[in-house]
Amino acid sequence: MNGSASAARLEPEIAPRPAPDALLAALKARFGAAFSTAQSVREQHGRDESVFTHVPPPAAVVFAESTQDVADAVRLCAQYRTPVIPFGVGSSLEGHLLAVQGGISLDVSRMNRVLSIDPEDLMVTVQPGVTREALNGELKSHGLFFPIDPGANASLGGMCATRASGTNAVRYGTMRENVLALEAVTATGEAIRTGARARKSSAGYDLTRLFVGSEGTLGVMTEITLRVYPLPEAISAAVCSFPTIGDAVRTVIEVIQLGVPIARVELIDGQTVGMVNRHSKLALREEPMLLMEFHGSPAGVKEQAEIVQELAGAHGAQAFDWATTPEARTRLWTARHHAYFAAIQSRPGCRSITTDVCVPISRLADCLLESLADTDASGLPYFLVGHVGDGNFHIGLLVDPDDAGERATAEALNHRIVTRALDMGGTCTGEHGVGLHKMDFLQSEAGAGAVAMMRAIKHALDPDNIMNPGKIFSW
Amino acid sequence: MNGSASAARLEPEIAPRPAPDALLAALKARFGAAFSTAQSVREQHGRDESVFTHVPPPAAVVFAESTQDVADAVRLCAQYRTPVIPFGVGSSLEGHLLAVQGGISLDVSRMNRVLSIDPEDLMVTVQPGVTREALNGELKSHGLFFPIDPGANASLGGMCATRASGTNAVRYGTMRENVLALEAVTATGEAIRTGARARKSSAGYDLTRLFVGSEGTLGVMTEITLRVYPLPEAISAAVCSFPTIGDAVRTVIEVIQLGVPIARVELIDGQTVGMVNRHSKLALREEPMLLMEFHGSPAGVKEQAEIVQELAGAHGAQAFDWATTPEARTRLWTARHHAYFAAIQSRPGCRSITTDVCVPISRLADCLLESLADTDASGLPYFLVGHVGDGNFHIGLLVDPDDAGERATAEALNHRIVTRALDMGGTCTGEHGVGLHKMDFLQSEAGAGAVAMMRAIKHALDPDNIMNPGKIFSW
Repeated sequence: MNGSASAARLEPEIAPRPAPDALLAALKARFGAAFSTAQSVREQHGRDESVFTHVPPPAAVVFAESTQDVADAVRLCAQYRTPVIPFGVGSSLEGHLLAVQGGISLDVSRMNRVLSIDPEDLMVTVQPGVTREALNGELKSHGLFFPIDPGANASLGGMCATRASGTNAVRYGTMRENVLALEAVTATGEAIRTGARARKSSAGYDLTRLFVGSEGTLGVMTEITLRVYPLPEAISAAVCSFPTIGDAVRTVIEVIQLGVPIARVELIDGQTVGMVNRHSKLALREEPMLLMEFHGSPAGVKEQAEIVQELAGAHGAQAFDWATTPEARTRLWTARHHAYFAAIQSRPGCRSITTDVCVPISRLADCLLESLADTDASGLPYFLVGHVGDGNFHIGLLVDPDDAGERATAEALNHRIVTRALDMGGTCTGEHGVGLHKMDFLQSEAGAGAVAMMRAIKHALDPDNIMNPGKIFSW
Repeated sequence: MNGSASAARLEPEIAPRPAPDALLAALKARFGAAFSTAQSVREQHGRDESVFTHVPPPAAVVFAESTQDVADAVRLCAQYRTPVIPFGVGSSLEGHLLAVQGGISLDVSRMNRVLSIDPEDLMVTVQPGVTREALNGELKSHGLFFPIDPGANASLGGMCATRASGTNAVRYGTMRENVLALEAVTATGEAIRTGARARKSSAGYDLTRLFVGSEGTLGVMTEITLRVYPLPEAISAAVCSFPTIGDAVRTVIEVIQLGVPIARVELIDGQTVGMVNRHSKLALREEPMLLMEFHGSPAGVKEQAEIVQELAGAHGAQAFDWATTPEARTRLWTARHHAYFAAIQSRPGCRSITTDVCVPISRLADCLLESLADTDASGLPYFLVGHVGDGNFHIGLLVDPDDAGERATAEALNHRIVTRALDMGGTCTGEHGVGLHKMDFLQSEAGAGAVAMMRAIKHALDPDNIMNPGKIFSW
């Protein structure tokens, strides 16, 4: 790693490979009504939540309903060396879904069945189009839940692809720790299985972990076996306001270093609380705030909460405001999850360039406070949320996507924030993935040797570069 | 996956590639006294704890003391296309260290420095030759510990290479979950870094997890950054005897399904307790036994222990026998860790063919009891220990390595046990790795497609097949 991250590009490199008419005809023949070249469908599949809005859409969209559909679509695309871009619900923040090299969008949202729920083994198997909310809806009656929660109601396939995490990761880990096994269709159109249903295994290379975080560049995940957890006997959630962001962050650092098994600990700054209040019709104090949740036995939850209250009090916190009923808890976390949309709505027509750095917890206060000072100095409107228990925070820079000056300011600021995080031993992306937006940063972070190794793996597994090409690294 | 695992070979395929004199001379010139071709040194590096005792030793041994040493040794071997076999302390059970294709043993045991301890970030960086006991010795004064504990006092490099786990994995995970970052020397002799010091990252392919469990076939790990944990405020350990193995296992299944965060829960059968008693001069009841440990706050530990005692009581358990002092705890776990050696000593001259299946917890009782019935029927002496909280157990078949009949019986039995575990959705190896011994099983477990993908990765990253060749899968 070295500290100098090169500047992010304002627009991605666009090098469309035309999809041959013969391929489109073959896909039409195979998929019938589940194949579309309609402009509106293509456009809907040619964008995501990123700031990149000027990339031409894919040539067509295939709606897969089975592993066989995925295999057939990939095999036909492979035959014509045409890119395949897997699509779940479109909530990527980093341009993962954009057809920068043309090709076909492979929409797996209709693969939305929970295939098996095994309460005895605390595991489930789902198709990739199942969303996390749908999964938790089905798990509830079994007394189970799946903790990984990136905020957006993302698809499990997308969450695997970006190695997502979110609010519960501080206790339950990320997708890295919670995917046990996969079925995936590789670049040749062959379905393979990785992992086993056992909790652990030393049987060969960890292909499961190789797919998790591969952003669609190595294949299309078609079945996902996940670890799930018994619903905690007791849950309590609280909000707590602090005089300054530094006080809130220092409280979190102490909580983590003491090893308190807190389930969620989220930071929101005062102005973002204001956006959330207006969007979700709440009346939270518009001051730096921690949203927390504790899971365990009634006695265990009480014990955790007492420790955290004591630490918070020493940093000048207001009294904890407890959300004691499930309804109050849901309202609180829904408001947190809508922070992104609340912020976007605060400036009509804007897009967010969202930083995603994650640093060792000992550096979190310095990294966050210095980055906020930079952001304040830039004059750009922004929101701040943070999965601070992991050392991860997001400053969302709310820019007019058609204003090159604003975007350049935001990218320069992002560059400065990433460079600082890398200098502190952190990463340019804690959970959103590299996509188009952080390709140059990956070079700085991982170094030439590691990126060369990633490339060698990609070249070996996808020699014609058809799987979501142009993402993570250039060919 | 399919259920028919092909039979394990009695001896590995030996295809030595002669190490050219020019290479030996170049290594001698570069490493001086840290290079040896002495017969005794070569023989010590040409064996491990596996049953394979008839493989010729490596042509020479290099003792590396730095990353530069490793890089230089690998570069020279690459130049002459000569195999390199990384060596830590030699505790492999599966033939990982054997020079089946000749080559150089690269001993990293002198790379035994703890490079940094970061209590604030709960992480350490070590060289690969540091053993887990040495690491925990250094961590103790910082109030920290590293939980992964395979029993043997293995090197951290070896534990990474085999994706080891052991007694604490039920709570803390395996090496997969606890390695944050690596430095590794690849097949070209280049040092690369993987991962970051942040707790989580979505920055590109998960090369760290690719190296963890790669058994030396992709490179040599030279620095390892690990997650560590605060020493629990309270620890209590207990032993508890049951009328039958089934009662003990069913207790564990209920503990896991209830989500009790038990730190260790180990099964030993009555006759193995006898071996342990004789070896460690203890007087434990020679009945099926669980050894347990609870970590947490004093109240939390008490709460966990009460739940487990209630569940155990319902399965006819004797009263818990608590090891309340640190000394008593240490004596108990040392005895558990010596179970393997106690068993080996129970039959002079024997070697253990150790099964390592791991199944979903719901299938554990069936898998274990049926496998024990098969083992009893075989007439072979054996020991039984199990990390039963993970669904993982070991039946060690104590054979005379020179008795082909006994070995054939043992291998046929192992084959039957693995086949059963695979049929139950499990794995042929929970923690020991594939090595030489489980190569055929890997094919059955992972399937041709996944093994082909592993091979493609190996071919891309080590095109001359010099990194520990002939392990995990054939070229």
